[in-house]
Amino acid sequence: MPKNALYAQSGGVTPVINASAYGVISAARRHPDVIGTVYAAQNGILGALDEVLIDTAQLSDADLAALKTTPGGAFGSCRHKLRHGAELTRLFELFAAHDIGYLFYNGGGDSADTCLKVAEFAQYHGYDLTAVHVPKTIDNDLPHSDCSPGFGSVAKYVGTAIREAGLDVASMAASSTKVFILEVMGRHTGWIAASAGLAAQDNDAAPHLILTPEVAFEPGRFLKAVKETIARVGYCTIVAAEGTRDAKGTFLSEAGGADAFGHIQLGGVAPILARLIKDELGHKCHWAVADYLQRAARHIASATDLAQAIAVGEAAVEFAVKGQRSVMPAIIREDSEPYRWRIDAVPLHDVANREKPLPREYLDADGWRLSAEGRAYFAPLIVGEAPPPFVDGLPAYPRWQFSHLPKKLIPFERG
Amino acid sequence: MPKNALYAQSGGVTPVINASAYGVISAARRHPDVIGTVYAAQNGILGALDEVLIDTAQLSDADLAALKTTPGGAFGSCRHKLRHGAELTRLFELFAAHDIGYLFYNGGGDSADTCLKVAEFAQYHGYDLTAVHVPKTIDNDLPHSDCSPGFGSVAKYVGTAIREAGLDVASMAASSTKVFILEVMGRHTGWIAASAGLAAQDNDAAPHLILTPEVAFEPGRFLKAVKETIARVGYCTIVAAEGTRDAKGTFLSEAGGADAFGHIQLGGVAPILARLIKDELGHKCHWAVADYLQRAARHIASATDLAQAIAVGEAAVEFAVKGQRSVMPAIIREDSEPYRWRIDAVPLHDVANREKPLPREYLDADGWRLSAEGRAYFAPLIVGEAPPPFVDGLPAYPRWQFSHLPKKLIPFERG
Repeated sequence: MPKNALYAQSGGVTPVINASAYGVISAARRHPDVIGTVYAAQNGILGALDEVLIDTAQLSDADLAALKTTPGGAFGSCRHKLRHGAELTRLFELFAAHDIGYLFYNGGGDSADTCLKVAEFAQYHGYDLTAVHVPKTIDNDLPHSDCSPGFGSVAKYVGTAIREAGLDVASMAASSTKVFILEVMGRHTGWIAASAGLAAQDNDAAPHLILTPEVAFEPGRFLKAVKETIARVGYCTIVAAEGTRDAKGTFLSEAGGADAFGHIQLGGVAPILARLIKDELGHKCHWAVADYLQRAARHIASATDLAQAIAVGEAAVEFAVKGQRSVMPAIIREDSEPYRWRIDAVPLHDVANREKPLPREYLDADGWRLSAEGRAYFAPLIVGEAPPPFVDGLPAYPRWQFSHLPKKLIPFERG
Repeated sequence: MPKNALYAQSGGVTPVINASAYGVISAARRHPDVIGTVYAAQNGILGALDEVLIDTAQLSDADLAALKTTPGGAFGSCRHKLRHGAELTRLFELFAAHDIGYLFYNGGGDSADTCLKVAEFAQYHGYDLTAVHVPKTIDNDLPHSDCSPGFGSVAKYVGTAIREAGLDVASMAASSTKVFILEVMGRHTGWIAASAGLAAQDNDAAPHLILTPEVAFEPGRFLKAVKETIARVGYCTIVAAEGTRDAKGTFLSEAGGADAFGHIQLGGVAPILARLIKDELGHKCHWAVADYLQRAARHIASATDLAQAIAVGEAAVEFAVKGQRSVMPAIIREDSEPYRWRIDAVPLHDVANREKPLPREYLDADGWRLSAEGRAYFAPLIVGEAPPPFVDGLPAYPRWQFSHLPKKLIPFERG
């Protein structure tokens, strides 16, 4: 009798996380003799603890196809660090009650760690569970995978945004705003900020300066570069990572409290830079903070990223069917030009809770722009368009309301 | 002997201002017996004063076609209020030196005023000039035109952005961010903010609350609405116009100095609202400021807007050829469903320096959401996609370097 599977989305969503859900569910449907039903946890692991499960058998083929074109998390995601003890035990009560033998956990580095813990708990207690982590993060900081599904689409968004804004600034700089700053995400890494460098066809094209956490921010050096760029080009466009920090590691902006994992919420670097430039150089600045817009911009997703998001979902199921446990499907680059990639299984031990910083050599000597090596890395990830359907002028995204499975367990009191 | 034409872009650029340039230039080429060469002023009226002119005969058919798909101002724009006296006189020296008998001035309300002043000066001094204003502004605040070219594309951008971000927030609100704020442009009007309301398929869909300058901001009423929305929907998404102000007319944010027209530079409403919600309701907020991204987002332009931008450019030339002076091609709505429109000439006297506020009845009783009437107005303006070509994953926008006409005048010392 085939065991059922649990699929859960975890952490910040991406423009293509649902494409991985599509990959998992559609691949599982091709192995009915091995995998029974795929249950999706409503709102990630919290839904699992609360036994709020969605039987994905209710998704029609059209629903499945729509997963490929809808941003956000179709089943809901969460930021919750699974606790040892009561929570982990509860999860296995859920597994037992719903005959779950497969876990497909779709998330980033924190989630890989959770997935591994669940797998280890199962092994220790002799519970027959195949746990596979499905990679996802716009931050691109997962080790052992050449890139992370979600990242390529965000890179395409920020590249498009700074190229477009750059043309806007260029056309008015002679008499108006000379400096434009775009703040992008990326947590403690500069992957997203650096990827915007793809938009620059030459040294005078936007973005002129990229700020990453990997290169310590020095106000004097920065202001000098802004000044020189304005003198040379007539204006200056800047892409700043939210995690931009100085040599001591102090973030330019610490906008709020910490999340469930103890991460500080970043944001607000752009207005701080604008103030610095205004005060020190006297230039009025315009600035934009893309925030969730970049992370949800399915309308300008990368077709390459979409294909990889689907592929890791499908591969996770294929690995599980073959009996591979505690692994993550990783994207392996075979060549950059022409771009070729495959998917390999890497042990979760090697992935969990580790951040992959942007290699310094992906930036030029100054750290302001992409090096040739960096460009070669990023270029293929944004290639191809995969727009969603549009109805009445807007992307047509379904707003699913799924019915939930009847509960079998007594309610769980979360601490 | 046909007289030459001067085309100049003025004020903030739009995703489709170059489509109007295409309309003017291509229509003028169809009347070689009436209009000689179209000269474009580099950086708008400043280029005219400095005698930095581009002979658009150098634009190939492919260049002309590319104008339709490129944001920013291809010939450069500026914010400069033309001064009576020396500047106005200088302009007519330029006209005489380059045998210019037609002025096509592509801008918003301020520019319409400038265009009118030039026309009046010509008439007073007996200079044979046909001045036609080509409308453009993302703010949609030009009177007598049903909408302004540029606006529909920005409306499509903000509608897409808030729908996408709304799905992102929805998928994580159970355990993470419950409030998202998107700040949009629009100066003193709420046209752009209100248009985002198209994204809401029903009362529980994003955007939940729209803040416009036309509805006085009251913190207590706003916080109550945020609280009620979170209680009902589980989260709350807000679109705030940069010009949001209280009953006394005080802007929530006055971020910088005034521009050449004495307008205060707005911006920074989103972080202020985020702070208010955090302090008073205790909710962590995410916020985005779209700034130039919305104004340059040619990648998601409205096909309807694009068609109208081209049409007003072409109509300006046709009006001029027929001898109509000091007019503006205005878009007249004939019907909303199905949407039908035509272009009529309206006297510049009726347009110059007047702002058209968002009608209060386009919002519901609370002022938070679109009324049926508002929806009927906005809906057709965002219809249709007209993506630019993409190369290597990014929109392919030319970076023109135009050669300039040999100068005939002595240099002009701007005051």
